[in-house]
Amino acid sequence: MAVTVEQDLKEYCLEVAQRAQAASRQLGVLTGAVKNDWLRRSAAELLRQTERLLEENARDLEAAPDFGLTEAQADRLKLSPERIADIAQGLQQVAMLPNPIGEIMQSSVRPNGLDVQKVRVPLGVIFFIYESRPNVTADAAALCVKSGNAVILRGGKEAAHSSRAIVQVLNQVAAAAGMPAHAVQLVSTTDRAAVGHFLALDQYINLAIPRGGEGLIRRVAAEARMPVIKHFSGNCHVYVDRNADPQMALQITVNSKCQRMGVCNAAESLLIHADVADNLLPPIAAALGEQGIELRGDAKVQELIAQAVAADEQDYRAEFLGPIMSVRVVDSLEDAIELINRYGSGHTDAIVTCDLAAARRFAEAVDSAAVMINASTRFNDGGEFGLGAEIGISTDKFHARGPCGLNELTSYKYVAYGNGQVR
Amino acid sequence: MAVTVEQDLKEYCLEVAQRAQAASRQLGVLTGAVKNDWLRRSAAELLRQTERLLEENARDLEAAPDFGLTEAQADRLKLSPERIADIAQGLQQVAMLPNPIGEIMQSSVRPNGLDVQKVRVPLGVIFFIYESRPNVTADAAALCVKSGNAVILRGGKEAAHSSRAIVQVLNQVAAAAGMPAHAVQLVSTTDRAAVGHFLALDQYINLAIPRGGEGLIRRVAAEARMPVIKHFSGNCHVYVDRNADPQMALQITVNSKCQRMGVCNAAESLLIHADVADNLLPPIAAALGEQGIELRGDAKVQELIAQAVAADEQDYRAEFLGPIMSVRVVDSLEDAIELINRYGSGHTDAIVTCDLAAARRFAEAVDSAAVMINASTRFNDGGEFGLGAEIGISTDKFHARGPCGLNELTSYKYVAYGNGQVR
Repeated sequence: MAVTVEQDLKEYCLEVAQRAQAASRQLGVLTGAVKNDWLRRSAAELLRQTERLLEENARDLEAAPDFGLTEAQADRLKLSPERIADIAQGLQQVAMLPNPIGEIMQSSVRPNGLDVQKVRVPLGVIFFIYESRPNVTADAAALCVKSGNAVILRGGKEAAHSSRAIVQVLNQVAAAAGMPAHAVQLVSTTDRAAVGHFLALDQYINLAIPRGGEGLIRRVAAEARMPVIKHFSGNCHVYVDRNADPQMALQITVNSKCQRMGVCNAAESLLIHADVADNLLPPIAAALGEQGIELRGDAKVQELIAQAVAADEQDYRAEFLGPIMSVRVVDSLEDAIELINRYGSGHTDAIVTCDLAAARRFAEAVDSAAVMINASTRFNDGGEFGLGAEIGISTDKFHARGPCGLNELTSYKYVAYGNGQVR
Repeated sequence: MAVTVEQDLKEYCLEVAQRAQAASRQLGVLTGAVKNDWLRRSAAELLRQTERLLEENARDLEAAPDFGLTEAQADRLKLSPERIADIAQGLQQVAMLPNPIGEIMQSSVRPNGLDVQKVRVPLGVIFFIYESRPNVTADAAALCVKSGNAVILRGGKEAAHSSRAIVQVLNQVAAAAGMPAHAVQLVSTTDRAAVGHFLALDQYINLAIPRGGEGLIRRVAAEARMPVIKHFSGNCHVYVDRNADPQMALQITVNSKCQRMGVCNAAESLLIHADVADNLLPPIAAALGEQGIELRGDAKVQELIAQAVAADEQDYRAEFLGPIMSVRVVDSLEDAIELINRYGSGHTDAIVTCDLAAARRFAEAVDSAAVMINASTRFNDGGEFGLGAEIGISTDKFHARGPCGLNELTSYKYVAYGNGQVR
């Protein structure tokens, strides 16, 4: 659709939102079988159209240098037959998850005989704004629709051709599966003003989910008139307690930091109890050093570790997403908790300890979406937590916290069955 | 605290919010016993200070004419020994509710042995803005604190002395119960600018709940940088289906409309199936007429009911909160559903029918917080639904929908217990 002037753009956004709301009314009452049929047909059709998807992806890759993408970024944009098979596999996996809609979450029969049921229902229309790889287009559509919502996708311009080709496939098989035509809509313009128009349409759109850099998330949160689930990346901590198993402390620290550095649940800060710092920090630092990690620490850390450089206040707050880690020696569990609540981002924080009371106190007092006891921070993930797929990891406390799977994309209603009850 | 200039006001609000956050960190890990002890001591002390509360209330009542309060409004402001006893009883009842904090809402042991628990935790700090009666001060404080949250109360100026006296009691007994001093804070200024300052402090305040007129709620929703639970009043419908029991249809319609007219779950609109309108509408209209209800209807309604006046488009959207009801004759269940979703406010809608398929279709397709099958709309209420007390009835779909009790004032965190798991 050609968008020539501002007014046209605004009207286009309104039409998309209205079509989404109309589709959501139908989607909300579809059986799981219909949604699963659509997911499976989509998966099959994506495989069948592999060649066309690769052609469209090639157009994005050609343009990548013009968008100033680095080689690593362009690589994440790239589709291959294997990656297309992974996308199809992802749709199949969402098809295998239970249909969340209609679940009776709670029920009680009141003294007057009224049978009150709390029933899971879709939110309605979800506006999903992302900058990321083409597979996110398919994943997000699958999760939103499986949870009974219509979705408006606003992908990055870098992946415009790939995303369009994927959404075309999802829409081509919709009619045959009995799905409304506008369950999944891809915004056809990359005009940034469109995002602002959608964020004002709270009459039609029930939730906005931005997935990308902090700037995008802040913009969406500031402008949106509907609720937003925010997925900030994390300044995740590993705290090595006085009673930590030394080998476990080393393995969990190295895994949390190094297993994949560029993700939100990778550790950025290490805290270690003063009683064990002399013994445990040197081997941990050596293991991190072998992985190329630069340590930035306080005076005590610098005393123990020759290569450590001085940390400034900003380092303790930083999400490096790369080979740097801040380190502090702390005098007590309570100090560790206080520092995590002050400097952390409420994402994922781990303690390594054999002390039950310390573990329980840490779990209770650290105000984060996920608290790990003797496990890597890298486990804060929808798949690892058993939620099936996830659309992101929320750092909010309202509605959804931590990994957001199908249930987190739903609401509920009360349905009360009576036989003539009046007050 | 004297507030002289704008900067002082802003600093005052910041201090209140910071104290609340500090208190919330302590409150979040208190046992239920401590919170219940505080509630019971507060109840006893309110009774003991009945005379002082009546004196302070008298000051509000004296000023009521200056605030332009009607006699009915002043009556709702009025305390009496019985009303103070009711307030104390309300605190006792919240003390008897189970402590929601620490509940393991879900858990699973993952294939790698990681024991993942989803644990209920407080939201943190709640900013509660209300215009209403003094008992709301005590109710709101009790619910927020029992659910582990610190609360900042911003009451209407009309009840300023009464609310202050109640909060003083709550705070006087705090230390003896082992509660943090700033769990409950009443904003000491009635300067409206203070509300704006608090709504900007999303770093300290996790949730805003406005309770009052639509203007207040819209202002809070527009200005707040933190999440808001909105409690709009309702345009609630009763739909009398083709297969309705005639007597039940009459009783439910009259009860929904007349049992208490000024509340959000009172019915405002009646829809009746064309097949039964000739037989059922006249007796229903007569019964409503006996209660002094004016009917505003379409042509068919006017044909059947001599006293009915013509309804305009606005009448079908109106929340009369008084002795007026809009009426329409509809050709089908689907038409009724469509009209409710278009004209209703998503609050509470009832169907009267003996037809199982119609009941199930209505429950599924009507997009409202509560759907009543053969029961009065007036049952959409925290007490009636078995939630214990409620802080309001949410018309949002995000986080909390329908009656908001203790659980709706909470969040959750994931706690994962491992024995050295890494990825």
